[in-house]
Amino acid sequence: MCQLLGMNANTPTDVMFSFTGLATRADEHKDGWGIAFFEGRGLRLFVDPESALASPVAAMVRRYPIRSRQVIAHIRKATQGQVALENCHPFVRELWGRYWVFAHNGDLRGYAPPLHGAFRPVGDTDSERAFCWLLQELAKAHASVPTVAELTLTLRELLPQPAAHGSFNLLLSNGQALWARASTRLHWLVRQHPFGAATLADADLSVDFAAATSPSDRVAVVATEPLTAGERWQAMAPGELQVFVDGLPA
Amino acid sequence: MCQLLGMNANTPTDVMFSFTGLATRADEHKDGWGIAFFEGRGLRLFVDPESALASPVAAMVRRYPIRSRQVIAHIRKATQGQVALENCHPFVRELWGRYWVFAHNGDLRGYAPPLHGAFRPVGDTDSERAFCWLLQELAKAHASVPTVAELTLTLRELLPQPAAHGSFNLLLSNGQALWARASTRLHWLVRQHPFGAATLADADLSVDFAAATSPSDRVAVVATEPLTAGERWQAMAPGELQVFVDGLPA
Repeated sequence: MCQLLGMNANTPTDVMFSFTGLATRADEHKDGWGIAFFEGRGLRLFVDPESALASPVAAMVRRYPIRSRQVIAHIRKATQGQVALENCHPFVRELWGRYWVFAHNGDLRGYAPPLHGAFRPVGDTDSERAFCWLLQELAKAHASVPTVAELTLTLRELLPQPAAHGSFNLLLSNGQALWARASTRLHWLVRQHPFGAATLADADLSVDFAAATSPSDRVAVVATEPLTAGERWQAMAPGELQVFVDGLPA
Repeated sequence: MCQLLGMNANTPTDVMFSFTGLATRADEHKDGWGIAFFEGRGLRLFVDPESALASPVAAMVRRYPIRSRQVIAHIRKATQGQVALENCHPFVRELWGRYWVFAHNGDLRGYAPPLHGAFRPVGDTDSERAFCWLLQELAKAHASVPTVAELTLTLRELLPQPAAHGSFNLLLSNGQALWARASTRLHWLVRQHPFGAATLADADLSVDFAAATSPSDRVAVVATEPLTAGERWQAMAPGELQVFVDGLPA
């Protein structure tokens, strides 16, 4: 299974600790990886069809503290689509003058939605097809960029359609909010004052968040599996949609 | 003035030598940089609002030999739009299931084209506006992805319109071909068998291409200013459009 990681914060925050935890799991997920960081409206996207353990780009991301309020990362285990750069998540498109970022964990069988709009897949994954369909339907539902609350309502109507074809755990962001939708497996937590320490579940690495933060900082982290020991991760229910704004569920 | 660098090759080729030459010029161009590499239909895009001399991402790109047949790079000196990630070139959009990459050197004054299509700027540069308009008009002119020759004809009709607003040197690629359009300043050359040696015009670095290539390799390089001494760079005329396929002008 692929691994998803999402981060939404009220202040620019680095994800080196969580990304290290995610990359540690790459030994089972050698079919590429990717990570997208919003900086305001701008976006940095790093994708690589190599394993996150071997990739020089992943090594740079682990060392270089890119600070962002919205991050989506993905480690891929191919189910549909060959191992190729164009099939690495996250996928990016522009709609209403904003970048949209999408990553998916799951498998949609026999999923061929009608794509008559402005968004076409470049690669051959079920995931990118679902993303293109989703943006096409968002563009039909709203004339220009709606509020986060309006987008959440529309997504709540749309997401069950691709989800009917299989497992559909996903992360979506437009730089204003992070949407997380669970099908089979997704966990989240909020880190805020008073900050404690945490240890990565899979690697011999600890961090004392109190030393690295100020009391007003708040960050929500979403991941396929809990990344740390000693913190209270909440499991999402099948079909549940959460939206995070400023480091909190909205 | 910004600096453009484009590469089109008949076999995946690294651009470390040329990018080093470009980055050397970054002392006058501190307002960000970017580079896009096609790998088949897939794309890697690195953008950074920091100077290419200081950026850890640029250091990684200089060290890590990413091999590609189509590359577009840009070093920015802001004329319109603040120094911000969303204003860094190259810009990317998807059309007809292919990524399109665009970088511009110049200044379009009072340029506000009607954008009624599927492409809207995320940042606030004249360049991204021109790119969005161009893709909107390409989408109107062709129902699905045309041949390179058909695209060249359409571009020849479209490009004079933004160019009427100021200087408009540009590089454009969809992964199949590299289009270069000169307004004030753009040079190109083809490297092919028998390969010689070249020395960067601005840095104390030489490369013997004969040692790094096979006789069938062929690469076209386009740059604002000639990057090397001892090679025959051709200056493009104002208004000239060149398209490069498999390392040769088509």
